[in-house]
Formats: sequence, C-alpha cells, structure tokens
Amino acid sequence: MGSLGTPIAINLKESGHELYVYNRTASKTAPLAAKGALVCTSIASLAKECTVVFTIVSDDVALKSICEGEQGLLKNLAAGSLHVSMSTILPQTAGELAALHLSCQQQYLAAPVFGRPEAAAARKLNFVMSGQQPARKQADPLLKDAGGTGVFDFGDSITAANTIKLCGNFLIAAALEAIGESAALATRSGVDAAAMWNMFSQTLFNTPLYHNYSNIILQQKFEPAAFTARLGLKDMNLVLQQAATANQQMPLASLLKENLQQLVDNGKENIDWSAVSLAR
Amino acid sequence: MGSLGTPIAINLKESGHELYVYNRTASKTAPLAAKGALVCTSIASLAKECTVVFTIVSDDVALKSICEGEQGLLKNLAAGSLHVSMSTILPQTAGELAALHLSCQQQYLAAPVFGRPEAAAARKLNFVMSGQQPARKQADPLLKDAGGTGVFDFGDSITAANTIKLCGNFLIAAALEAIGESAALATRSGVDAAAMWNMFSQTLFNTPLYHNYSNIILQQKFEPAAFTARLGLKDMNLVLQQAATANQQMPLASLLKENLQQLVDNGKENIDWSAVSLAR
Repeated sequence: MGSLGTPIAINLKESGHELYVYNRTASKTAPLAAKGALVCTSIASLAKECTVVFTIVSDDVALKSICEGEQGLLKNLAAGSLHVSMSTILPQTAGELAALHLSCQQQYLAAPVFGRPEAAAARKLNFVMSGQQPARKQADPLLKDAGGTGVFDFGDSITAANTIKLCGNFLIAAALEAIGESAALATRSGVDAAAMWNMFSQTLFNTPLYHNYSNIILQQKFEPAAFTARLGLKDMNLVLQQAATANQQMPLASLLKENLQQLVDNGKENIDWSAVSLAR
Repeated sequence: MGSLGTPIAINLKESGHELYVYNRTASKTAPLAAKGALVCTSIASLAKECTVVFTIVSDDVALKSICEGEQGLLKNLAAGSLHVSMSTILPQTAGELAALHLSCQQQYLAAPVFGRPEAAAARKLNFVMSGQQPARKQADPLLKDAGGTGVFDFGDSITAANTIKLCGNFLIAAALEAIGESAALATRSGVDAAAMWNMFSQTLFNTPLYHNYSNIILQQKFEPAAFTARLGLKDMNLVLQQAATANQQMPLASLLKENLQQLVDNGKENIDWSAVSLAR
C-alpha cells in the first residue's frame, strides 16, 4: 500500500474484484478499507483467502520475506494460486521465487510496472510481464483492471520482464542526468533553460517523461519525491548487478549510480531521483 | 551543399526564391543547378549577387574561412545584408562573427538546425535562432521556406542559439548511449532487445528520435551514416569547450566524448554516431 500499491489496489477494487489487502504498517490500508477492501492482519491470513496475490514492495529482500517462512505466501497459498509480482527486483530473484512457487504447485508471474502514482490513478500504467503461459493468460486482464493501459507480454522466460524493467529505469535515469546537465550548461551560459526545454519538449523530446521531469529539474521541485534517490540508487545497483551477471560494461549506468550514491551520502536520500545530475 | 545543405537549398528554391549556390566541391551543386539555381564559382561572386546568405558547414574553422579574407562574405556582401548561419559552432564564434559583420554594417543571425536529411526533405526541420531583432524578423519566414516546421526565437543574445544547439546534440548523444547500453544489457541477458525497444518506443520513449535510433542501433546499420562519429566528436568537444567556458562540469558529456574519440581512434570516424555505446 505504498505510493503505487494504493492506486493499483483501488483500480482493482473499482474494477469489481473482491479485494483483500495487507500492509506491514496497518494504517496504510485505511484508504482501501474505506473503499470496501477487506483488511488482513497477516500475509498468511490474506494468502488463505486469495487465489491471486499481487505484491509491490521496495526491494528483493522485502519480497523474499513476504514469500518465505511459516507466515509467507509459499506456505499459505493454495495449490494452483498465482503470485503476480510487480516489484523492481533482480531477474535472478524472480527466477528463484518462480522455482519456489512451482515447488509448491503455485504460479509466479514477473509483472513489473512503469508509471508514477498519478499515472496509476489515471489507469495509464504500463506492465511488462514474463513467466509461464497460463500465468500470463490469467494475469493479462487483471493487469488491465489494475490500471495497465499497456500489458506487454515478453514470453516464458521468467527473468525477461525484470531485465526490461531495469533497462527502463536505467533509461529514465539517463534522461534525468542529460536533462540536468543540459539545463545547467544553458543556465551557466546565460540562456533561459526553461525556454530551451519548452522547445525541446515540443520537438525532439516530445514525451510526458521529458516534459514532466524537465519541469521538476528546472524548478528544482525535488520534494515531495515521487521516486526517491534511495530507490533510484537501489535500482542502479540492480542494473549494475545484472550487467555484471551478463558480463556487460555500462559506463553510463556506473555514472548514474555514482551520482545517486553521492546524493544518498549527502543525506538527500529522500529527495526525488531527478536531482541525479546535481549530486556533485 | 552537404547532406543538409542540399535539401534546405532545394526547399528555398521551391519556395519561389531566386537562389545562388556555392560549394567548394563544385560537382555537389549539380542537383541545385538542375532545379534552376544559379551556380557561383566563388564565395565573393555569390556575395555580390545576394542580400541574404545562408551557410551550413561542418565546423568553426570552415565557417570563419567563408567569412574572412579578400574573397569572404565580410568583404563582398553589401551593407545591410544578412548572413543566416546554420552551422553547429561554438557560441563564442557566433559572437565574433556577429561583431565582424556589424563592423561591415552587415547582420549575422545564429540559426542552427535540428533534423536529419530526411526531415529536411520533408520540411520538418526545427531552427533555433538568436541575434538582433531585425535579423530575426527578416529570417523567420525564410527559415520556414528553408524547411523549418518550427522556428524558435531565443532573443537578442547572439550566443543563445548555438548554446541550445550544443545542448540538443548532447541530449541526442546521451539518448544514443542509453539506447545502446540498454540494448546490450538486454541481449546479454537473453532478452529480445528489439521487442523491448518496440515496447519502449510505444510507451516511455514514444518519439521519432528514439524510434529511429533504436532501430539503427539494434540492426547495427551504422553505414551509410546520416551523421558521422567524427562530427559527433566535434560536437561533444564543442559542448565540453562551452562547459569549460561556463565553468560547468558535465560528466555525461565527458563520457560521450571519450566514447566517440575511441570510435574515431579505431578508424570508425565515418560510421554513424549512434554507434557511440559500442566504442569499447
């Protein structure tokens, strides 16, 4: 029930599904309870009520902790149930969890999500999914109900969707660094960087991503964060871990990681990651 | 009469203007002569026929050589004439040339251009212009005739337009590096990078720039080049020179410059600059 989980859960409820919710901090379930969702006090009790479970948490460790142990999904979901995992995690973790679910005769689908909270509320999310075919077939309409304007099927390989999600977050971070450096060069050269970005947003970089983030960066509106530097750093570390696994050099990803690390080291872990280029 | 100069000149001719052309390599003027342009055998003779001159050359030195000397524009254009300069050059060079033209009672307008040759032919170029107001007013309709779907006015400061052009080429190069690194990570991770980019081109990065360049990069179609690594390196050097002048660090621009330098050092100066991420 974080910034993305809440609007996604609301979308599911408003699509007519019976919805059970759980959050470690129970107070965060209040908006859902107000909409008629049934609040569970443990993962185990939720797992016993549901045949499809969606999870969205901040990292690999948190996701594993939901799955494992006496109170976890693996021990408490019925055979044949489906775990739709929306978190941004290492592809390898997706593979491990899929294998564990399979050993319990359950299904695991990797279905990470692109979109900020306002996109979730507007049902303009994009999901990328991979995993076994029956799971993909079952999840496709549910992901649309969850707010997916696009649900992109990347086939059987359980690691594909999370690899693509990492590529996407790397691409966004690269755009943020580029916007920031360009705006700084313009400003220091006596050029109106807002006027410049108004032009780029109409021409070469005419997308909501560049439009929104150039506004945030030019106005230095880094709080409240929609996606924090801490989470951005986590993701760039995952990108570089995956790059190491794949034996691929990514000098730009390394630069982005170093800048985000610098922000975090300077105590700015809770500002928006679009401050990446201002780290030094 | 290079890859951009030729379609721009054709646009001007087809917009109904009387057109004189000059190119150092005379044979390149043949397509224009065929369309009724009058071919001049020297810059001096062209300057004596024209009150508005457009130039588009590959670097600062080439542009200065057109302007200076007994045969140059400065000595041979009539007072009141206008030099519309489309080349990607240092902002400081634009300032110097504007001052020289002013001392000859001539006008100089900085009007660099965004767009590949096919965009020029389709009249989908974007010009950014800066310089004195009468020059901007006179040039605006002419730049539309030259193929500008957008002509963006950045005011009096002669250095503004070239600074913005350098920012734009930096942003494009940054996108190329990011596309290349993401595609490599996907491929090395066993993911279909073309399918991934098909998704990104429909969602987060739904622009012609990402669409076209992701195709080029995934197919490794770096020849024939629309914009060479050599020219890309020249531009990243200009970006870093401007950054030094403005006392602004640009670590991503430095990375891009190093990669393009590596391509050139490896004898690949004539392939498309979209190979930037494959330098090492």
